[in-house]
Amino acid sequence: MAAIGRKVFDKISYHLKNGHNVKFVRNISNSGTFKYADLEITTTTNPQEKPAPEKLLFGHHFTDHMLHVDWSMSKGWGKPHIGPLQNISIHPAAKVLHYGAELFEGMKAYKGIDEKIRLFRPMENMKRMNKTAERCALPTFDGTELVKCIKKLISVDADWVPTTQNSSLYIRPTLIGNDPTLGVSLSHNAMLFVILGPVGSYFTTGLDPVTLFADPKYVRAWPGGCGNYKMGSNYAPTVQVQAKAVESNCHQVLWLFGDDHQLTEVGTMNLFMYWTNEQGEDELITHPLDGLVLPGITRSSLIKVAEKWGEFKVTEKPYTMKQVIKALKENRVKEIFGAGTACVVCPVKEILYQGEMLKIPAVGEPKLSMRFYDELTDIQLGKKESEWTELI
Amino acid sequence: MAAIGRKVFDKISYHLKNGHNVKFVRNISNSGTFKYADLEITTTTNPQEKPAPEKLLFGHHFTDHMLHVDWSMSKGWGKPHIGPLQNISIHPAAKVLHYGAELFEGMKAYKGIDEKIRLFRPMENMKRMNKTAERCALPTFDGTELVKCIKKLISVDADWVPTTQNSSLYIRPTLIGNDPTLGVSLSHNAMLFVILGPVGSYFTTGLDPVTLFADPKYVRAWPGGCGNYKMGSNYAPTVQVQAKAVESNCHQVLWLFGDDHQLTEVGTMNLFMYWTNEQGEDELITHPLDGLVLPGITRSSLIKVAEKWGEFKVTEKPYTMKQVIKALKENRVKEIFGAGTACVVCPVKEILYQGEMLKIPAVGEPKLSMRFYDELTDIQLGKKESEWTELI
Repeated sequence: MAAIGRKVFDKISYHLKNGHNVKFVRNISNSGTFKYADLEITTTTNPQEKPAPEKLLFGHHFTDHMLHVDWSMSKGWGKPHIGPLQNISIHPAAKVLHYGAELFEGMKAYKGIDEKIRLFRPMENMKRMNKTAERCALPTFDGTELVKCIKKLISVDADWVPTTQNSSLYIRPTLIGNDPTLGVSLSHNAMLFVILGPVGSYFTTGLDPVTLFADPKYVRAWPGGCGNYKMGSNYAPTVQVQAKAVESNCHQVLWLFGDDHQLTEVGTMNLFMYWTNEQGEDELITHPLDGLVLPGITRSSLIKVAEKWGEFKVTEKPYTMKQVIKALKENRVKEIFGAGTACVVCPVKEILYQGEMLKIPAVGEPKLSMRFYDELTDIQLGKKESEWTELI
Repeated sequence: MAAIGRKVFDKISYHLKNGHNVKFVRNISNSGTFKYADLEITTTTNPQEKPAPEKLLFGHHFTDHMLHVDWSMSKGWGKPHIGPLQNISIHPAAKVLHYGAELFEGMKAYKGIDEKIRLFRPMENMKRMNKTAERCALPTFDGTELVKCIKKLISVDADWVPTTQNSSLYIRPTLIGNDPTLGVSLSHNAMLFVILGPVGSYFTTGLDPVTLFADPKYVRAWPGGCGNYKMGSNYAPTVQVQAKAVESNCHQVLWLFGDDHQLTEVGTMNLFMYWTNEQGEDELITHPLDGLVLPGITRSSLIKVAEKWGEFKVTEKPYTMKQVIKALKENRVKEIFGAGTACVVCPVKEILYQGEMLKIPAVGEPKLSMRFYDELTDIQLGKKESEWTELI
């Protein structure tokens, strides 16, 4: 059964005289898939106490169960298992511990006003996860099968989905290369797992604006790199920079790029500016999907919502600190905000840039980001009908 | 005893209204250290059979024991332990599995012609490891203490140090962030471990030249990034590119940078060119330590050896594919070679660039790289006295 959906790999075994055997799979995206139909479930005999809703810290609480599926180059994907949440046993030479052979997704399940549990555009996460897997040289799979398995996992831990306002169940699909050999080369073994955890409200009283640290000396992504994939390797380099931001009394890092200091991402979110542009048009602008920014699902959703509204111009193109500063001076900046799964939207109140604290917005209240927030959360909570949600 | 060498951390606990607690250590480099004096040793009751020397595959064989030391933000470094090689138990939310919170070093122990075991410039690895730890926001330590622990580990597994010509014991110090919480932030827990494995000769019959794949569309490192640190995050993005190199019948990737296609690194090695430059001088040139290349210990050793010889100019500055192509046409390229711990030197015979296979060298045999190889291995094997080796 472990071989279901597996194709025979077209390996090139290529021997260097130096004693290395470099085995290369011509097309690792032919990894086949695991099947929901093969799912095995072992429920825990030791359920944990659920944390108080008001004490939920992001990423600190996990449900009773997890999903895992093993993969090997020789046998393909195995059967998916749901079992008790437990530690993973990893060989100290495993590639994930040395070379960052890892990737993840971030999704949420929401308990709606009708008590039903919904996922928000889960196949978008699956498509991105498979693209990332290919770039990371880890095996791909059929995303519809993983969504089915995730829905089952959530239903097993359904009691963990928080019911308090604005809280949700965070879903973390992860894929790691875990074969026990050193050497920067293809992983011959991998493991896909999914863990769940209840997370609290990002915003207790409306949208809480943040201060950004913008230092062009730190660069998150580069053309020809992997900044547009959700690989673990994009994150480790940011932790020290985030620490410097906090040292400067800022909440998040604003990632600039290029000699003209383009605004690309904020923290781990995409970034939007709503302004009156140089041509006098009201415009929502965000950096394009040119390889430097993550193709965020919230990003894509806000663009689609705005286009549907049709009330202002929606533009995906680079914009620079020089443009922002000029627009601030001329009172043309309405709002700047981050967008991501964790918070939906995250308004910016200040940017620390070249020794100066720029105040945002120059005009008005964060009305657009609040409107986006309401629009998306109404869909996620089932207050508004939408093709973007799926019941579990 | 776990608190020996530990300093009290200067924490800023900083509360966002969104429910996140961001704890920030002002200076994680004040992590104190573990001490060799505290080392505890448990030897295995189940020693493994050693592989046949002629069948050694890099990174596939490990000795009977490993070293590990735990760290936590609250307690600092614990006691170092030497115990049987075994799997590590990791929470599925551990930062190392999601955000690439990991770094490593590569070193070797050599059995000399006098049967004594030597390390080569081990403190250089320790300095680099601590610099990388700081950039990766993981705890630092006193490198002299780790070298002492590593020497002890090697002496416990001394029977594993190969005695056949050109083989050695590979040493892999590794540091991972393993606290069980999601969220891109400082690791509150970490684990340092060292594993060892016998590795075979890179070169069975002299120096075996390689063919390189040079495609400027893939970029390994960039200004403001982490290309000069030995973080795991530098490696995952290279695996797919290495696979493309093999698809094009090349052995390794030549990493180019910038619009002028500077030659920076090859595979996981530094790169050198020995040529007659535009001014007619014999010159050994390598990309400078400007943040784009790893500060290799073999790189630094070759530069020092060449400077001591004083027979040709030694230059650390960028050089481009245009310069290389012009010099090839004018028969001014003597040799191009990689340099790293695994192989010492690795001559290049061809570069696949923009559809053309450039033949290297234009003139002569790889005499300089062979001479470097002999010089360094003579030191490593104790045939030549040097301050660069330390007996274990």
